[in-house]
Amino acid sequence: MVASRLAQLYGSSLTLLNDLYQLTMAFAYWKSGMADREAVFHLFFRRPPFQGGFTLAGGLAPALEYLEQFRFDSSDLDYLAGLQGNDGLRLFEDEFLQHLSQLKLTCDIDAIPEGTVVYPHEPLVRVRGPLLQCQLLETPLLNIINFQSLVATRAARICLAARGEPVIEFGTRRAQGIDGGVSASRAAYLGGCAATSNVLAGKLFGIPVRGTHAHSWVMAFENELEAFRSYARALPNNCIFLVDTYDSIRGVERAIEVGRELRRQGHEMIGIRLDSGDLADLSIQARKLLDEVGFEEAVIVASNNLDEHIIASLKDQGARIGVWGVGTRLATASEQPALGGVYKMSAIRSPAGQWQYKIKLSEQAIKVNIPGILQVRRFQREGRFLADAIFDEELNIPPGCTIVDPFDSTRRKTIPAGTEHADLLEPVVRAGERSGQLASLPECRARVRTQLQGLDPGVKRFLNPAEYPVGLEMKLYEMKKDLVLEARRRQEKHRLHPATPVTVRQGES
Amino acid sequence: MVASRLAQLYGSSLTLLNDLYQLTMAFAYWKSGMADREAVFHLFFRRPPFQGGFTLAGGLAPALEYLEQFRFDSSDLDYLAGLQGNDGLRLFEDEFLQHLSQLKLTCDIDAIPEGTVVYPHEPLVRVRGPLLQCQLLETPLLNIINFQSLVATRAARICLAARGEPVIEFGTRRAQGIDGGVSASRAAYLGGCAATSNVLAGKLFGIPVRGTHAHSWVMAFENELEAFRSYARALPNNCIFLVDTYDSIRGVERAIEVGRELRRQGHEMIGIRLDSGDLADLSIQARKLLDEVGFEEAVIVASNNLDEHIIASLKDQGARIGVWGVGTRLATASEQPALGGVYKMSAIRSPAGQWQYKIKLSEQAIKVNIPGILQVRRFQREGRFLADAIFDEELNIPPGCTIVDPFDSTRRKTIPAGTEHADLLEPVVRAGERSGQLASLPECRARVRTQLQGLDPGVKRFLNPAEYPVGLEMKLYEMKKDLVLEARRRQEKHRLHPATPVTVRQGES
Repeated sequence: MVASRLAQLYGSSLTLLNDLYQLTMAFAYWKSGMADREAVFHLFFRRPPFQGGFTLAGGLAPALEYLEQFRFDSSDLDYLAGLQGNDGLRLFEDEFLQHLSQLKLTCDIDAIPEGTVVYPHEPLVRVRGPLLQCQLLETPLLNIINFQSLVATRAARICLAARGEPVIEFGTRRAQGIDGGVSASRAAYLGGCAATSNVLAGKLFGIPVRGTHAHSWVMAFENELEAFRSYARALPNNCIFLVDTYDSIRGVERAIEVGRELRRQGHEMIGIRLDSGDLADLSIQARKLLDEVGFEEAVIVASNNLDEHIIASLKDQGARIGVWGVGTRLATASEQPALGGVYKMSAIRSPAGQWQYKIKLSEQAIKVNIPGILQVRRFQREGRFLADAIFDEELNIPPGCTIVDPFDSTRRKTIPAGTEHADLLEPVVRAGERSGQLASLPECRARVRTQLQGLDPGVKRFLNPAEYPVGLEMKLYEMKKDLVLEARRRQEKHRLHPATPVTVRQGES
Repeated sequence: MVASRLAQLYGSSLTLLNDLYQLTMAFAYWKSGMADREAVFHLFFRRPPFQGGFTLAGGLAPALEYLEQFRFDSSDLDYLAGLQGNDGLRLFEDEFLQHLSQLKLTCDIDAIPEGTVVYPHEPLVRVRGPLLQCQLLETPLLNIINFQSLVATRAARICLAARGEPVIEFGTRRAQGIDGGVSASRAAYLGGCAATSNVLAGKLFGIPVRGTHAHSWVMAFENELEAFRSYARALPNNCIFLVDTYDSIRGVERAIEVGRELRRQGHEMIGIRLDSGDLADLSIQARKLLDEVGFEEAVIVASNNLDEHIIASLKDQGARIGVWGVGTRLATASEQPALGGVYKMSAIRSPAGQWQYKIKLSEQAIKVNIPGILQVRRFQREGRFLADAIFDEELNIPPGCTIVDPFDSTRRKTIPAGTEHADLLEPVVRAGERSGQLASLPECRARVRTQLQGLDPGVKRFLNPAEYPVGLEMKLYEMKKDLVLEARRRQEKHRLHPATPVTVRQGES
C-alpha cells in the first residue's frame, strides 16, 4: 500500500536513503570486479527490546515496497556526481553512475512474516544476490524493519498489560517526524492496538481512527457544561468528554448531566476521558458516579504518559479504566527508542564458485556473527512453542536435532525426531520480483495474537522474563566454532611485528 | 526546500496528519458557529530534554513548508466522509466537508527562529487566527517542531562534548522510519554536526555527507590487508579504514601498510575508524602507531553507541579521537526520545470582540498554561544572555522590568531600564502567507554557535546545569494569578451537589 507513496516521498526517489559508505563500497566492489559475486546477508538483532522476553517481526511489507521503487534517478546520479574525496576530485566515476542508472535488483529475499515472535540472532531477513546489491539494501532494510519491529513489540507489551481492553495509539504529536508518526501508527496496530488517533495512518493503512476532544474545546467556552453541551449538539454520536480541564470529578458530573440530555434525544454518551491526576483513584470515583446514575456502559478512557508498566500498576490498584490511550511511550518506544538490528554478511562465493562462510571477530562474543545461509526452525507441540533451531540450509538438519546456546556451549537441548515444526523464513522475493502474496496488515495483526498464545507466560513477563530456548543446530555450531578458531589462528599468524619507528613523513611518497 | 517533497509524501496530501479529535473539534466549532472566532495558541515545552539547561528551537522551516501544502484533497474528504460515530451514522456532514475543501489558512504565525536557545514555557510558535484553523495546526506543528528541537538540542550537547572536533551523524539505520532518519539528519546538522552519512539528507538539505566502509567490505576479501588495498585502489581519495573486523591494533598496522602504499602513489590516507572495544585505550595505541610512522595527520574516527556522556568520558581518559561518529543515540535522542511540547489556547475573542484570556487548571502547577498573547524578551549585555521575560503584547512592558518565576513567586529578578534586549518571536506568516525570508539551514546552524557562546558555562553543563533566569513579566504574572484564582473560585461556586443515585437506566430517554 505504501509503495507508491514512498516512491514519491520528498518528490525524489528514496534510493539515496542510504549511508554514503554503502555507495562507496558499491563503487569499490564494482571497481574491483566483485559487484556480481553472490553473497548472503542476514538482518538480525542481538537483544530483545525493553528487557523483554520476546520481539515481534515487523516492517516486511513497507520494506518490500521500498525495494519496489529502488532505482537511481537522474537527480540522484547528478547528486552523486558532485561528491568529492579529500583531494577535491570526484568520488564516483561516470561509468559507475551509468551502472547505477541501469541497476535493477535481482536478489532473492527470504523473511519471517510480520507479526511472528522472533528472538536474538534469528535472521528476520535473508538477502542473497550480487554483493553490490546486497550492500545497498543494508541501510533501508534496517531503517524500516528496526523501527516497525520495535514499535510492534512495544504495542504488544502494552496490549498484554491492558489484558484485552482496547489500546488506542495517540502518539503522532510526539513522534519522530511525520513518517515516524505514520509508521508508528502502523506498527502499533500490527502489535495489537485497536485504533489510532492519526487520521493519515487511518487513511493509508485502513486502521480504525478514534478521538475525543482536547482541553482547548472546553477553554473555548464560558464553562465546561456549555462546552460539553455544544460538543454533544454537534457530534451526538461521538461523545467522550475530557473531564480534567478544571477538576476531573466535577467534570464527570457535568459529563453525566450532558449524558442525560443526550439520552433524552435518543443518543448515548460513549464515555469520559481522564488525562491527569491519580488515574486509579479518579477512575474508581468516576466509575462509581457513572454507575450510580445508570451509565454503566459509559467507558472510561485514560491517557497521560502511559506504558505497559503504568497500565499494569493501575490494574493492580483496581483502576476502572476501559480504554487506554497511549501516545509518546508507544510511538517513540521510549526507554529504548531503537532496536539494535544489524545486517551482516555471512557467506560469499569464491571466484571459483564455492561458498565461503564468513565471520567477523569481536572482543564481545555477542558480536561474532553466525556464518552460513541460515533458516530458523520452530518446534512446537499442541500450539505451544518449544524451541527454535537456527540452522544452515546447506548442511542437512537431522530429524532429531540438538541445539546449542551460541554463547554458552554447555547449554544444549535435544528435540526428538518427529516433533512438529515450521521453518520461519519464507521466500518473498526471487530474482528481484515479489514471490507470492504477503499477508495483509490485519492478518499479521491476527498472527500476533496466536503467536503470543503459543508462548509460555514466563516469556511474556515484563520483569526478568523467562528465556525461550534458541540455539544453533549442532552442525552449524561446530562449523561456526571451527571458523572462529581458524580466524583467530590466522590473526596470530599474520600478526605484524610491533611497529618500529620509521622516518616516513607526511607528504613523502 | 522540503515543501514540495512533503506535499507529495505518500502520494496523498499530508493534511490528514492530524489527530482525529482536531477534526471532530473543527466540525463542532463549525457547527457551533465558532469556527471563525479569533484565538491564540502557543507551542511550548515544560522541561528541557536530557535533564539539560538549554534547548534549541528547531523545525520552523519544515513546519512552514508543511503549512504551505495544507489543503484537503478529494481523497482526504472521501476518507472523512466514510468515518462513523457510535451509532453507525456519519461523523461529518457534507456541508462541513465542503467547508474543508475550500479551507485556506489565514492565520498569523510568529515564531522563534531555528537555532535559538529557548527555555520552558517560552512560546516557540504563536498561532493567531480563526479557531478552527488554529486547532487543525496543533498536531502537525507539534510533530515537526518537537522532533527537530529535540534532535538539534541533542546534537548541540554532543558537539559541546566533542569540544570543536567534528561530529558526524550516522543514525539512519536505527532511526524511527524513513523520515525519522532524514529529518534527524537535518536537525543534527542544525545543532552543530559537521556531516551526515545519510545521502538522501545530503541531497535534500545540502548537508555534507561522509562515510568510511563496513565490516562486510573486509569480510568480502581473503584478508584485511587485501580488503584495504582493494578499497584504496578504488577510492584512493576516500580512505578511512575500519580496523576492528578481526583485531583493531593489527587493523591499524595493516591500514598503515596501505597508507604507505597510497603515499607512494601520491595519495594520503584520511585515517582509520574504531568501532568496538576500549575506544580510549585503542585510540591512544592507534595514535602512537600512526604518529611513529609519519601519519600524524591521519584522523582517528570512533563510533559505537556514542553520546555526550561517553564522549566526555573518553576525553577525560585522554582518548585520541579526532572525529566522532554518532548514530542511534543522536538520531533517536535516546534517554528522552520525545520533547514534550504542547500547544495550548491562551486567548479567544468573545462574540462581542473582546479578548478573553484562557487558562487550564491542573493539580500540577507546571501544567497551568500562561494566558495572553505572548512574546519573549531576551536581555543581554556584551553578548551574554542575562534573563528572559515572557510578557503579554497587549500589556505594556515597562522599560525597567521585573520577572517572576512562574512556579515560585518569591523568586524575582529586576532588569534595569536600558538593558540591551531583543524580542524573540518574529512574524513568519501573515494572513496565511509567508512574511519575509527565513534564515537558511547553514545560517541557523551558525546561530547555534553564537547562541551557545552567549550562555554561562553552567547552563551548558550536563550534570545539574545552572538554571537560566526566565520569568513572567510582573503584569503578566499578576494577570495569570488573578485568572487562576478566579477560575478556582468558579469551580467552587459551580460545584454540583454530590451525585445522588437516580434510577435513569441505559436506554431510557
